[in-house]
Amino acid sequence: MATLEDIARSLGVSKSTVSKALNGAPDVSAAMRTAALEKAVELGYSHPSRRSTTRRLALFVINMRCDTPDDFGYDIVVGFRKLAEPAGFQVDVIPLTHQMQQENRYDAYMIANRYCGGLFLGLSLLDPWIKEFETCQTPTVLYDNCIRGNPNVAQIAVDSFEGMQLTIAHLKELGHKKIGYLSSALQAHVYQQRYHAFFRAMDESGLPGSQSLSGSAYHISECLTHHLPRLLEAGCTAIVCSHDNLAYSVLLHCRELGLRIPEDISIVGFDDMPLCRYARPPLTTVRQDRMDLGKTAFSAMSALMSGIPLSTMLLRAELIQRSSCAAPIK
Amino acid sequence: MATLEDIARSLGVSKSTVSKALNGAPDVSAAMRTAALEKAVELGYSHPSRRSTTRRLALFVINMRCDTPDDFGYDIVVGFRKLAEPAGFQVDVIPLTHQMQQENRYDAYMIANRYCGGLFLGLSLLDPWIKEFETCQTPTVLYDNCIRGNPNVAQIAVDSFEGMQLTIAHLKELGHKKIGYLSSALQAHVYQQRYHAFFRAMDESGLPGSQSLSGSAYHISECLTHHLPRLLEAGCTAIVCSHDNLAYSVLLHCRELGLRIPEDISIVGFDDMPLCRYARPPLTTVRQDRMDLGKTAFSAMSALMSGIPLSTMLLRAELIQRSSCAAPIK
Repeated sequence: MATLEDIARSLGVSKSTVSKALNGAPDVSAAMRTAALEKAVELGYSHPSRRSTTRRLALFVINMRCDTPDDFGYDIVVGFRKLAEPAGFQVDVIPLTHQMQQENRYDAYMIANRYCGGLFLGLSLLDPWIKEFETCQTPTVLYDNCIRGNPNVAQIAVDSFEGMQLTIAHLKELGHKKIGYLSSALQAHVYQQRYHAFFRAMDESGLPGSQSLSGSAYHISECLTHHLPRLLEAGCTAIVCSHDNLAYSVLLHCRELGLRIPEDISIVGFDDMPLCRYARPPLTTVRQDRMDLGKTAFSAMSALMSGIPLSTMLLRAELIQRSSCAAPIK
Repeated sequence: MATLEDIARSLGVSKSTVSKALNGAPDVSAAMRTAALEKAVELGYSHPSRRSTTRRLALFVINMRCDTPDDFGYDIVVGFRKLAEPAGFQVDVIPLTHQMQQENRYDAYMIANRYCGGLFLGLSLLDPWIKEFETCQTPTVLYDNCIRGNPNVAQIAVDSFEGMQLTIAHLKELGHKKIGYLSSALQAHVYQQRYHAFFRAMDESGLPGSQSLSGSAYHISECLTHHLPRLLEAGCTAIVCSHDNLAYSVLLHCRELGLRIPEDISIVGFDDMPLCRYARPPLTTVRQDRMDLGKTAFSAMSALMSGIPLSTMLLRAELIQRSSCAAPIK
C-alpha cells in the first residue's frame, strides 16, 4: 500500500505538501491538490483515516428516498448505522447526482473526503461511477448492483430468484397457469435480475413462461396503457410486478377497468412497502427486510475492509400473503 | 423462544428434571433425556449456552480432510477459528459420519451438546442431515451446499460462475473453441453448480458448449478411461475439470497417451490445491482462498446468530494462470 512519501517522491514535492493537498489545506493550489489526488489513486494510496479512531463511511443515495420511515431507503440507513456507529464509524448520508459523478473520480472523491468505504443505494446501470467500480480501490458495497471481477466491490441483495420461486409456487398452488409479468425499465440491474428470476421460476415450476406475456417501461403509466391490456386480453389470470408501486398502480387500473381483485385477476408485488398493507385489497408481495439489508451492508463492508474478497451477500426472500391473490375463476 | 419451564410444563415434570435431562445428568433416565430433547426441538428451545460467556460452535467435517496444511479443509478451519475464538467461541472440529446422522436428530444433537451453531464442510446431497436443514432451528452454515427457504441456514462458497467465466475467457483468448468438461459425480451440490456454471460461461462467451463434450463419474479412473478418450477424439483442445485432483490425473493420463501439455491439450483445474504448483507443467486453476472462506463462514454464522436471514455469501474467484494452457496448435 502506497504512503505519503511515495506520492511525494513521485511528484517531486515534499511530504507535507502532499499531506496538505490531500487534506484540502488552503495554502496548496488546486492544481497540486488534483495532481496529489490523481497520484494517490494511481498508486493505490488509502487515507490514514481508515486506521484512525474516527473512521468515516459514505452512504450514497440516488433514485431513492430515505428521509422518513415511509421511504424505501430509511430502514436500510438505520440498519447500517445500527452496526456501523457502535463499531466506531461516522456515517454520512450523501445525495448523489450525475453531475457529482461526472465532476469527480470516485476513488479521488473518497480520498479527498477521508472516507474509508462507500455504500450505494439506488444506482442505475447508466450512472457514470458504475464504470469506475470495475477498478476502484475503495471498499465499496452496492445494493442491488453487481460488478464482476473487482475484489474491492461487493453486492448485497434479497434473493430475487427465491422471491420469484415463492411467488410462482403460490400462484401455481392457487391454480394459475397463465401468469404475466410487468416491470420497470430493464436498465437497472435489479429489474434485470427479477425479470430473469421470474422466467427461471416459471420454467422450474413447469409453467409455460412466455416473453409475450411480459412488458417493461420506464413510466408506470406506459406499463398500464401499453402492456397491461395486452396481458389481460391474452388471458392472464395473475400478474406479477417488478415492484410494489407498479403492482399498486396495476391494482387501481384493473379496478377502473371493472375487474375484481382477486376474483378476476391476482396481483403480486415485490418489496413489501408500507402501501401494500393499506391497498384495497391488501397486496401480496415479496418482502425485503430493509433493516436486515442495512445490517448486511455493514457486514459486507467490514469483510471488504478486512481484505476478504467478498462478492455477494444475499438475504432470504419471504412471500407475504395478503388478499390480492385467489384461485382463478375458470 | 421456549424456556425450560415450557418444556417442563409440556412434559408434566419439574424444571430441574428438564435441566438435568438436557445437560446429560446421570440421575435422569435415557427415556426422559430423549423426551426432553425432542420436546426442546419441537418448542424451538435454544440452549442458554447461546447467551453465556463460553459459547460453543461445532465444525463438522465429512468427505474432506483438515489435519495438515496440505489438506483442503485445513485453512478453512484456521480462518474460522481466527475470527470465532477472539469473539469468545470455543470451536470443536467433529468428524461427521452417516451413522451419527442416522442416530441423532440434528437440532437435538446440538442442544444436547450445547452448541449454538454448526458449520459443515464436505456434505454431499446424500447425507441424512441435508433433509433436516430444511427446517432446523440451529444457526447453520453450509460450505458449498444450498438449502432453500430456511432462514436459519446460509451457504458460503466461492463464486463458481465467476470462476468459470474467467476460465473460459482465458481459453477463448488463447484461441480455443472446442472445450470439454470433466467432473466428479454430480451428486454434490458444488459439482452441479460448477457444471451449470461451465455451460453458462460457454454460452455467454459465444462458444458452442455441448453436453456431449462433457462427462462425470464418481471415480477419477472412470473419468479417465470412459470420458477423456471420447473428448480427445471429438477434437477438444482444452479440458476444464471440476477440481484439481481430477485435473492433475487428466494431466498425467494425457502424458501417458503421448500428448504434450500445453502444446497438444490445455488443462484447467479448480480449487488451487498445493499440488497445482508442483505439477509438471504447473496447473492453471481457479483459486478458492480457503482462509477467507473460513472467515466468511464465521461472518455468516454471526449474521444468523443475530437473526439476520442470510441466504448466501459468495467470495470472488481468481484465475491462477500457470503453464498448463497455451494456444491450440491448429
